[in-house]
Amino acid sequence: MVHNFNAGPSILPQQVFQEASQAVLNYNNTGLSILEIGHRTSTFQAVMDEARALVKELMDLKDTHEVLFLHGGASTQFMQVPMNLLDDKQTAAYADTGVWGQKAIKEAKLFGKVEVVCTGKESNYTIIPKDFAVPNDASYFHITTNNTIYGSQWQKIPKTSIPLVGDMSSDIFSRVIDFNAFDLIYAGAQKNMGPAGVNLVVVNRNILGKIKRTIPTIMDYRNHIKDGSMMNTPPVFAVYVCMLTLRWLKEQGGVAAVEKRNIEKAALLYDEIDRNPLFAGTVAKEDRSKMNACFIMNDPALEEKFLAYTKSKDIIGIKGHRLVGGFRASLYNALPLSSVQVLVDAMKSFAQEQA
Amino acid sequence: MVHNFNAGPSILPQQVFQEASQAVLNYNNTGLSILEIGHRTSTFQAVMDEARALVKELMDLKDTHEVLFLHGGASTQFMQVPMNLLDDKQTAAYADTGVWGQKAIKEAKLFGKVEVVCTGKESNYTIIPKDFAVPNDASYFHITTNNTIYGSQWQKIPKTSIPLVGDMSSDIFSRVIDFNAFDLIYAGAQKNMGPAGVNLVVVNRNILGKIKRTIPTIMDYRNHIKDGSMMNTPPVFAVYVCMLTLRWLKEQGGVAAVEKRNIEKAALLYDEIDRNPLFAGTVAKEDRSKMNACFIMNDPALEEKFLAYTKSKDIIGIKGHRLVGGFRASLYNALPLSSVQVLVDAMKSFAQEQA
Repeated sequence: MVHNFNAGPSILPQQVFQEASQAVLNYNNTGLSILEIGHRTSTFQAVMDEARALVKELMDLKDTHEVLFLHGGASTQFMQVPMNLLDDKQTAAYADTGVWGQKAIKEAKLFGKVEVVCTGKESNYTIIPKDFAVPNDASYFHITTNNTIYGSQWQKIPKTSIPLVGDMSSDIFSRVIDFNAFDLIYAGAQKNMGPAGVNLVVVNRNILGKIKRTIPTIMDYRNHIKDGSMMNTPPVFAVYVCMLTLRWLKEQGGVAAVEKRNIEKAALLYDEIDRNPLFAGTVAKEDRSKMNACFIMNDPALEEKFLAYTKSKDIIGIKGHRLVGGFRASLYNALPLSSVQVLVDAMKSFAQEQA
Repeated sequence: MVHNFNAGPSILPQQVFQEASQAVLNYNNTGLSILEIGHRTSTFQAVMDEARALVKELMDLKDTHEVLFLHGGASTQFMQVPMNLLDDKQTAAYADTGVWGQKAIKEAKLFGKVEVVCTGKESNYTIIPKDFAVPNDASYFHITTNNTIYGSQWQKIPKTSIPLVGDMSSDIFSRVIDFNAFDLIYAGAQKNMGPAGVNLVVVNRNILGKIKRTIPTIMDYRNHIKDGSMMNTPPVFAVYVCMLTLRWLKEQGGVAAVEKRNIEKAALLYDEIDRNPLFAGTVAKEDRSKMNACFIMNDPALEEKFLAYTKSKDIIGIKGHRLVGGFRASLYNALPLSSVQVLVDAMKSFAQEQA
């Protein structure tokens, strides 16, 4: 068995792979592959309806909040959010907590003014900023709830008087938060929710339509809401696999149940990082991500050796991002505790062999 | 066996379904699903490289022409094309040959001026316009090579002195044309090429960078060219299935071989439409699409009965679009001649039963 710690695309539940594989051959005994079913059929409409309803239920969303499955990934939303919410002369507030926040800031600047209200830059993004003020006349405040590359995560969602926008690509559905506190949430599916190629967008419809810009048809959230997320041909298979993954999440007991396991998994790994004299965590303890654990070796010369050692134990995807170095173990919902145990055991036995 | 005449998403080769189904469980004996493989791995890089190389080979593209697999479908390109090619004060020329052309025109108007140089509107789009002039100072000339809804198709690609842009969503890879005569080709994959959720874009790099607008990062073709179509996480599975379908196309003998079969399939069906007194084609004979055959019944009261009759013979997806009525049989590359024969036989036997 391979232990898949990929940062994304990443591991999904095994039963999802089984069902999706069967559906590619013969979906629900229709004699058709899920790949050849028209999106305007009742067959696919049922998939889209269930996927949207599961999101509403699992996030406990209010009626104001609409659920959309759109083409693209978070990189599309970096542009689409300001295109829909930020007028030329207005200002949007952004938190800079790493690469993805910076990319979002860059695109927002094409549509209006941006005020970066806090940054983790001075510490090379090893912390989540704590003391900052968000101007209450800004159009919205944008945060990246989990920073996949640096391995930091907002433990407490900041309170604002203005619309709050969250890029939750790498921690969506991983923990209980008040999703309704956000007026717009977006997430590329390829971590906790499904395969690459679809975006989840949750948006409070009351924040839309406030700007003067004419928005291209495909980019205007209001069009997608009006057409029930079926304005154009959706990424059928990706939506279907999201639906399967959300079903699985519900079977597990929902977000609270999976959060409990995520806490266990993260504790198991971070405890070893802190205990084992060969390793060190890179992020301030209180800001550590439960989704992406970043760590280095105190002797960098050992890193290549440890990587080869883990590979021999069928552990994959733990090489750190080049901006941080060392290692990154992604602990998404579908990763079993037993895989984390294999990694921790490898850290222990490697240390013993070095002693 | 179901005979799938869906307009899109639509039938793909059975061997593609088999291979894709296996890959969702265990890709190339990696022990991993294709859905959980990182896009920055050599494993997926090989898929992307092969898919792009197959497009170049099958279209016999010059070195100036770059191949990209992008998120979204043709509806995204309706916006992305003028965003990249049309300056505020410039004019783009468009042919209006139906719904999709109109949608493309609507988006182009958000970015600059549009001159509709020809339209099939007067005839309810039952013809492809023949006599028209394209202004040689326009930024580009846009055509929809095949009109999925109305069932018409450009048999001869117009010659222009300005860049030619083609929406080939519903007839790409179905016939031999000089693809290099186009400076930009786009196609949502979900007809002849793969599952919904990915766009093929072929672009002559020399037409890019001529406008003043700042283009959002994800929308700028130049960024995707620079990063080898891997600027952000691509729709991994959709690209993979495109690669499988392109491999199949090559095994069949390439575009010329599949065109020969497409001609046979279309002739078989149109001959029956013309011969059988119950049916009539809706498009001028010389402009008929070989991909989407639209036809009505001379007695509209029989249409529901015929639809039920075909359904009993496992023929699906032939209900016409509401704008045209009647029937539409889509005859994409992967549809076997035997399925067309089943439909033609049903037309014959239904007529006999009515006599």
